[in-house]
Amino acid sequence: METLFALANGYLGIRGTFEEGTPVFQKGSLINGFHETWPIVYPESAFGYARTGQTIVNVPDGTLIRLYVDDEPFDLAQATLLNYERTLNMQTGILERDVIWGKGSGKRIRIRSRRLVSFEHRHVAAVSYEVTLLNADAPIVISSELVYQEETRPVEGDQRGSRAFAERVLLPQGLQACGGKAILTTMTRTSRMTLACGMEHVVETDGSYDLENQSSNERGRVLLSVNGIAGQTVRLTKLLTYHDSRHAEVDELAERAERALERARGLGFDGLAAGQHAYLGTFWDRADIEVRGDIELQQAVRFNIFHIHQASARTDGMGLPAKGLTGHGYEGHYFWDTEIYVLPFLIYTSPQLARNLLRFRYRMLDAARKRAREVNQEGALFPWRTINGEEASAYYAAGTAQYHINADIIFALMKYVEVTGDSAFLHQEGAEMLIETARMWRSLGFYSARANGQFCINGVTGPDEYNTVVNNNAFTNLMARENLRAAATTLQEIRANHPDRFAGLAHDTGLSDSEIAEWQAAADRMYVPYDEAAGIHLQDDEFLSKKPWDFANTSADQYPLLLHFHPLVIYRHNVVKQADIVLAMFLLGNTFPLEQKRRNFDYYDPLTTGDSSLSVSIQSILAMELGYRDKAIEYLRYGLWMDLADFHANVEQGCHIASMGGTWMAVVYGVAGMRDHGGRITFDPRLGKRIEGLRFHLTSRGQLLTVDIEGRKGQATYLLREGSGLTIGHLDEELKLEPGKPVSRAFKS
Amino acid sequence: METLFALANGYLGIRGTFEEGTPVFQKGSLINGFHETWPIVYPESAFGYARTGQTIVNVPDGTLIRLYVDDEPFDLAQATLLNYERTLNMQTGILERDVIWGKGSGKRIRIRSRRLVSFEHRHVAAVSYEVTLLNADAPIVISSELVYQEETRPVEGDQRGSRAFAERVLLPQGLQACGGKAILTTMTRTSRMTLACGMEHVVETDGSYDLENQSSNERGRVLLSVNGIAGQTVRLTKLLTYHDSRHAEVDELAERAERALERARGLGFDGLAAGQHAYLGTFWDRADIEVRGDIELQQAVRFNIFHIHQASARTDGMGLPAKGLTGHGYEGHYFWDTEIYVLPFLIYTSPQLARNLLRFRYRMLDAARKRAREVNQEGALFPWRTINGEEASAYYAAGTAQYHINADIIFALMKYVEVTGDSAFLHQEGAEMLIETARMWRSLGFYSARANGQFCINGVTGPDEYNTVVNNNAFTNLMARENLRAAATTLQEIRANHPDRFAGLAHDTGLSDSEIAEWQAAADRMYVPYDEAAGIHLQDDEFLSKKPWDFANTSADQYPLLLHFHPLVIYRHNVVKQADIVLAMFLLGNTFPLEQKRRNFDYYDPLTTGDSSLSVSIQSILAMELGYRDKAIEYLRYGLWMDLADFHANVEQGCHIASMGGTWMAVVYGVAGMRDHGGRITFDPRLGKRIEGLRFHLTSRGQLLTVDIEGRKGQATYLLREGSGLTIGHLDEELKLEPGKPVSRAFKS
Repeated sequence: METLFALANGYLGIRGTFEEGTPVFQKGSLINGFHETWPIVYPESAFGYARTGQTIVNVPDGTLIRLYVDDEPFDLAQATLLNYERTLNMQTGILERDVIWGKGSGKRIRIRSRRLVSFEHRHVAAVSYEVTLLNADAPIVISSELVYQEETRPVEGDQRGSRAFAERVLLPQGLQACGGKAILTTMTRTSRMTLACGMEHVVETDGSYDLENQSSNERGRVLLSVNGIAGQTVRLTKLLTYHDSRHAEVDELAERAERALERARGLGFDGLAAGQHAYLGTFWDRADIEVRGDIELQQAVRFNIFHIHQASARTDGMGLPAKGLTGHGYEGHYFWDTEIYVLPFLIYTSPQLARNLLRFRYRMLDAARKRAREVNQEGALFPWRTINGEEASAYYAAGTAQYHINADIIFALMKYVEVTGDSAFLHQEGAEMLIETARMWRSLGFYSARANGQFCINGVTGPDEYNTVVNNNAFTNLMARENLRAAATTLQEIRANHPDRFAGLAHDTGLSDSEIAEWQAAADRMYVPYDEAAGIHLQDDEFLSKKPWDFANTSADQYPLLLHFHPLVIYRHNVVKQADIVLAMFLLGNTFPLEQKRRNFDYYDPLTTGDSSLSVSIQSILAMELGYRDKAIEYLRYGLWMDLADFHANVEQGCHIASMGGTWMAVVYGVAGMRDHGGRITFDPRLGKRIEGLRFHLTSRGQLLTVDIEGRKGQATYLLREGSGLTIGHLDEELKLEPGKPVSRAFKS
Repeated sequence: METLFALANGYLGIRGTFEEGTPVFQKGSLINGFHETWPIVYPESAFGYARTGQTIVNVPDGTLIRLYVDDEPFDLAQATLLNYERTLNMQTGILERDVIWGKGSGKRIRIRSRRLVSFEHRHVAAVSYEVTLLNADAPIVISSELVYQEETRPVEGDQRGSRAFAERVLLPQGLQACGGKAILTTMTRTSRMTLACGMEHVVETDGSYDLENQSSNERGRVLLSVNGIAGQTVRLTKLLTYHDSRHAEVDELAERAERALERARGLGFDGLAAGQHAYLGTFWDRADIEVRGDIELQQAVRFNIFHIHQASARTDGMGLPAKGLTGHGYEGHYFWDTEIYVLPFLIYTSPQLARNLLRFRYRMLDAARKRAREVNQEGALFPWRTINGEEASAYYAAGTAQYHINADIIFALMKYVEVTGDSAFLHQEGAEMLIETARMWRSLGFYSARANGQFCINGVTGPDEYNTVVNNNAFTNLMARENLRAAATTLQEIRANHPDRFAGLAHDTGLSDSEIAEWQAAADRMYVPYDEAAGIHLQDDEFLSKKPWDFANTSADQYPLLLHFHPLVIYRHNVVKQADIVLAMFLLGNTFPLEQKRRNFDYYDPLTTGDSSLSVSIQSILAMELGYRDKAIEYLRYGLWMDLADFHANVEQGCHIASMGGTWMAVVYGVAGMRDHGGRITFDPRLGKRIEGLRFHLTSRGQLLTVDIEGRKGQATYLLREGSGLTIGHLDEELKLEPGKPVSRAFKS
């Protein structure tokens, strides 16, 4: 619940813990990118290993509000609750809790708390805490705090968890306290990041009250005392703000905090709530998916979309952590799944956010150049997992070896450009990223005599982490080919049409004409492993040579396999965590004939454990395309409820944001049958059991398209709500849409 | 020098540090198997990883003798030395140092120290320290100590080094001190091993002296004061003893120490030295190799043999650490190289020692059974590196994945039985080891449809650690085949001829007849990768598909590659640390036609960096067999001087004992052309540049054979010095040797 009810805006995240502080699985207030570093110590080390660990750390917790009635603490774990309700309102962006506390004395107290993390004001969060004495007088004391939190607990033996620190991480730097306000400043021990956080309070109640500031360097604390009268409501509004930096002095941050609190105080909780509602209104207007016929599915779809938005809305200059800001899992690191699983949603609903995330990668380019040198490559090698741009993966086989992240980033870049038409970005940041990644691929692979002179890439790990350090991972080679081609094509286009920019690039990167030709040649001669006898693409050169996995004798509690079998056992078997061939058939769907897709899917699907949360959404899309509708819907439902039903038994570590992005794709690409190769949008709607209809919105080249699919009628309606005209495809037909004029077409439901 | 001048007897080792304590690279007194344990912490952990580290630790240093003349300390780093000589006498087993100290005052003092670690009395070491005032009177004070040593320093980024501990490892438990004697008892912090060590002193000098015992729990210390007169010699004999245990109380160990010191005192240094000389006389009589024509080579050969003996003579129930007891490298662990590189020497010169080491493996069988379960195998899986029987490798790709160690142990077992005829050992311990290792192989591999139903073994690492976690490593498959065959053949033989024993085995291990048939079938259908086009065996399925290594642009200081390139870079290239196909062609030489050997060698030799110290000796043997004599002798010389010339730049960590065993093989199997497949000994002498003649001894089935090869005459003489009759081969001729009757045959020199 602490994860599912987490609030976040992409900059600041607060887990759904109770104000009163207990009971708690894992507290957490997180700022995107606010991390501690530590030396990675390997029991057996080797050259080129990642040296510096990076771990997102808890900032001081501002949600704490302790209530005392008759000097007795309100303890949720012990109290008699006459009513209890908790609501995450995805329309207003507010987490609300309403309880009635029945004391032994017969006194009843209603406690209503509301919490928000503002989308509009990214540094601000707020809590409204109302205490109503329902049937008797009583003294009320409320202690509102801002406290340093213990560090996150480690998850033993599970690489998906986070890390504990032996020493205190946040070193207090100072305090400003006055009236209802307290601002703490602090610094991380090793990474030397600075932080100011503050709280301010507004009290609303009939009659008098007393407000006392008891803050110290170690803790902000404001004490509110009221001699409550039956029927009276005491409302405490708590305004919170956080400001972090890698460079700024804490005093400057404290000033920012001061100003932010002042503004927030001016708005009050209700003003912030109104802004929140309006912000989300705009969001849902462009990003909602309405599902007809299954109210639970509808709710799950929106829950997934809401959490993607919470993870991405205000990342601004930062990346998007695997768990968003809902938990400490994966240490707050940024992975490839941002680009492959989350960016499609952003590109089509909030292209500016997609651009921000791509710019963030661009700013990591120098670190990636350095990393490439460390592992003997030219160009740039983006890290498998990172916060600050340096490789932080401490297990290269499922880390640095996943070179495909470079092609994934470029794939997302090109998708972004195709859909938005943002050629300025392509020519500036994009061109440099293309050059350096193409160089990396060119130096990584080689023309192999054994493969008839084709271009081979050895010793890499694809998205499927159950087969590591393999030769010619098909996904990697296919995506690298796209990367090389995109680089060659784009640079040729710049050379032809923007000679000044080309000259600039040549100057800055040493780019030569022959290099571009080399990329094109490597792409043209890219080797893609294929087995003629079986008629399938091979996940890698050796995939068919592996020992079959004994699925029949693997019990349900032995999944995920990675928690129950030594990596060597998994790696030597014909078993898959996520089917990366299937992913390739989705991303590069236009390059595979349908029957090839079927043969590949039929082969790989039974071998796929889905132990990766990234698996089911893609399986769903392909299953839908191949007409396996029940299977597709089953996979989709699994994806949609992955966190809500905690299918992976680790939701405590945070939401699987990429999987959530995957579910959006499973609906839009799967159920609605959208395809967008080369930026041209087409639809082949399918729906499926229990889904009667679907309505969703896509932004393309600044135009807003609404798609409404009616299962019973077997009719799809396309409406260009904004824009000047858009050409799309429905089945094999080309539709020229004009703004405001819906076009309906039939499909076979 | 501290490594090269180390003294050891297989139980106790003392590095060649100076008595006076400085200067020191790394102190070290080591007891075989006396280790501390620690939890292995992985930055990214996974199921089945080794959990407990094991590190050999320094026992208290008893060599310390500080000399003061005129109350001025004798400091080797500062003193003016008029003479300095240090000698490791490999005939007497004594390390001697003779210096003349010229003081500023004009006084000259001769200091002569001699040190031994007794082969006869494995718990005893002794130092004779003589101080002679050459030209003037002076007060002499000698402080003789027994002190706890700081732990070994870590070698950053080099997995071949050892480990430092944050906390003190040895916890003092008690002290007995009286007169010239002090006994300290101690216990390791975590592994709870107990130790008693003691020193006793005998003073010989004209005139009076004063002996004062200043020992404490933390340090044994005895102070000798003499008012020295010109011409007078003061001789201090220091007797040392060490007794460790996993179970015994320290008080019991202290009693043992007491008794050992008493016995040693009875013998005195000279008595111990006489015993040492006699013991080595017997050893050299059976193990010496005389090389004619190259005195430096002669010395290097004997140096290597001497250190093997120091590592193995009194291991008794323990294993043989990779560095013997000459340094802390590889943490005092036991590896496969004991069986493959050292056992041949022991089998042919001291078969009882070979038997002890095989028994030691047998005693680890239960731990190996447990380890097999952890990684999903049946039978037993011996650990890649260990002291206490548990897997201690913290990098599975070059650790647990090296399943071949199981076949290596069995190979040595069968070689031992063939050469000694010790069928009792085979039927008792051996049979059980055969059963459990064969089971492991049977469950590890599978009949692969892709390989026409042949038996394949995937996801393993061969001896070559530059290609890890590969499919069908040829060395592994070939050796596994031998293992399976040996198990099937031996168990069939026991079933036929020793039904009671067979019933016992069936009862103890659940062995069934069908299992034996399964082993035979797996062996018969074992897949061995071979490339028809190239006409060579493949190191593994993918070896030919790798990217060529750019040897031309690899500078000398980039070797060993493992210290300069990320593992991924090395693994994806066509480059070899040690050629395991070549090793297989040596061990199983009778199964490869000569021309096949040539094609394989010609292909792999240029790809072999020799970054493993285990490489050159085997390359030498095959080069010799193929007639590449210059290359063979070059490799042999490289091996012989590996530590003497510190070719691998890490002799400070200890001698490469397995490489030393390899040099013995390179002489006997290479230069003398011995082969012994199936236990039948044949010779095909070749000699080579600068080697005029060779004389060595082999023990087979209790008989002692001396082989004398005369290069100039082109004549080999075989003499059965002990025994009743032995049939050997010379070239294609069978020779029936009778005791005392030399037989000479010509060969083409």
